[in-house]
Amino acid sequence: MRRLLPFYPAQSVLDSTMADIWQDAMDHAVALARKSGSLVRDAVQNDMKVMLKSCSVDLVTKTDQKVEELIIASVKEKFPTHSFIGEESVAAGETCVLTDSPTWIVDPVDGTTNFVHGYPFVAVSIGFAVKKKLEFGVVYSCIEDKMYSARRGKGAFCNGQPLQVSDQKEINQSIIATEFGSSRDTDVIDKIFSSMRNILCLPVHGIRGVGSAAINMCLVASGCVEAYYEMGIHCWDVAAGAIIVTEAGGVLMDVEGGPFDLMSRRVVAANNKTIAEGIVKQIDAFTPSRDDR
Amino acid sequence: MRRLLPFYPAQSVLDSTMADIWQDAMDHAVALARKSGSLVRDAVQNDMKVMLKSCSVDLVTKTDQKVEELIIASVKEKFPTHSFIGEESVAAGETCVLTDSPTWIVDPVDGTTNFVHGYPFVAVSIGFAVKKKLEFGVVYSCIEDKMYSARRGKGAFCNGQPLQVSDQKEINQSIIATEFGSSRDTDVIDKIFSSMRNILCLPVHGIRGVGSAAINMCLVASGCVEAYYEMGIHCWDVAAGAIIVTEAGGVLMDVEGGPFDLMSRRVVAANNKTIAEGIVKQIDAFTPSRDDR
Repeated sequence: MRRLLPFYPAQSVLDSTMADIWQDAMDHAVALARKSGSLVRDAVQNDMKVMLKSCSVDLVTKTDQKVEELIIASVKEKFPTHSFIGEESVAAGETCVLTDSPTWIVDPVDGTTNFVHGYPFVAVSIGFAVKKKLEFGVVYSCIEDKMYSARRGKGAFCNGQPLQVSDQKEINQSIIATEFGSSRDTDVIDKIFSSMRNILCLPVHGIRGVGSAAINMCLVASGCVEAYYEMGIHCWDVAAGAIIVTEAGGVLMDVEGGPFDLMSRRVVAANNKTIAEGIVKQIDAFTPSRDDR
Repeated sequence: MRRLLPFYPAQSVLDSTMADIWQDAMDHAVALARKSGSLVRDAVQNDMKVMLKSCSVDLVTKTDQKVEELIIASVKEKFPTHSFIGEESVAAGETCVLTDSPTWIVDPVDGTTNFVHGYPFVAVSIGFAVKKKLEFGVVYSCIEDKMYSARRGKGAFCNGQPLQVSDQKEINQSIIATEFGSSRDTDVIDKIFSSMRNILCLPVHGIRGVGSAAINMCLVASGCVEAYYEMGIHCWDVAAGAIIVTEAGGVLMDVEGGPFDLMSRRVVAANNKTIAEGIVKQIDAFTPSRDDR
């Protein structure tokens, strides 16, 4: 026989109500990512000729700022108490500290160099954390028109299809994704090249990199590459991708093997712990200054 | 007043008839690339689960052979006097010499490692040379469903849209495509890494590589990257891409600056001579054993 609920709701009901709130936020994030992505795609397709001349840096900044403002304005209207960490806001002097407050972590254009050149991997990345824990992530690869998303405990999807990491356990049967990064500092370059060479010579099947941290992580979630690692990325590059990877069955780790720290600017995202630890052993690690410092 | 043709056709008429013959061959190549590409795509999408277990090498070989046999059988029926150079035929012991005969140069699956992992850049590449000169090239990037093609003197296209290389003249504003390659020989790896590092530190905007020589060349033709270079590729990897690049306005060069030699296993493909020469200066060259030796 079905019993009446007591006057005060049980914790599970509260949890489910809270969960619904975040689902609502997630739906909003998906809609925003799609809208923002179409702006970014239009900029790539229509303004390519302009960009390839002289003012590419201005144009990318303009698009970045416009898209970030659009996202923040829309979220503020719907969720006025929420916080933000956004690439352009931080560049403009806003603080970059993750608090317990529900926080939107936004990269309006992930893959800026690709954007300038029309190289077809550019993403809008929106992660969302509550009490410093990621609740959902949305990565819209806008030129490919692929919408990746994951809600904590509910799996990861691309255009509605469930994602599953590769089940490969042999690192020498793997493809690893990484990037050369934007630093041209000799010490940094030394470590980036020595890490890549160590991994290539394990050997692995290959090393790839599409030029977007967010999309590289979605490729781990999709099972096309076994792992992605990078040092020097920012929290807005990887927040959304991180939960997409774990919800697709993958793992996150620091490049020296400790727990993944969103603000540390270092990440290993892999299909499983064996592969992640195999990568960690080969990385010649360095420590970029933290995002929250 | 229109004059009657003499009994014997003028050379220009003969030339135009010959041109028509090659156009017919090119139309056949496009149809074959599309048909073969759909087989490859089906194999990637349906057999991924199988491949990620143990027998990936067998499966890729099986698909490679099946597609190459399909292409050769169809061409032999329609053009019984033509010659072939195909990756799988050469692996099976056929000679690999480019003669004056009309020759189809075929890579049934370019991006084999990508194919095994479902990494979405896999191409069917069909080049066609007469008297050792490339007449047309077709690259079908089958997961993306992009059909690239070029006929000598008639431009390069992707899905019907004309292609044009980037007009960038500053190498430090460029993206360069290359690959780590499949060799794990220490001397080869030394030169590959030192070349990459020299180029990265010019500096350039970035280094990319999708894992398929044919598609990397099509990205040069599309203007997304300024140049692609590699040592260790084979004639079937680059024959079709080579004419797609030049018909899109780009240039080809050897990695030491001499003329491009299809059988030398070395290539620089760039948007213009300035960028090509800028790349050549940074390459730590090595000389793989030729395809025709």
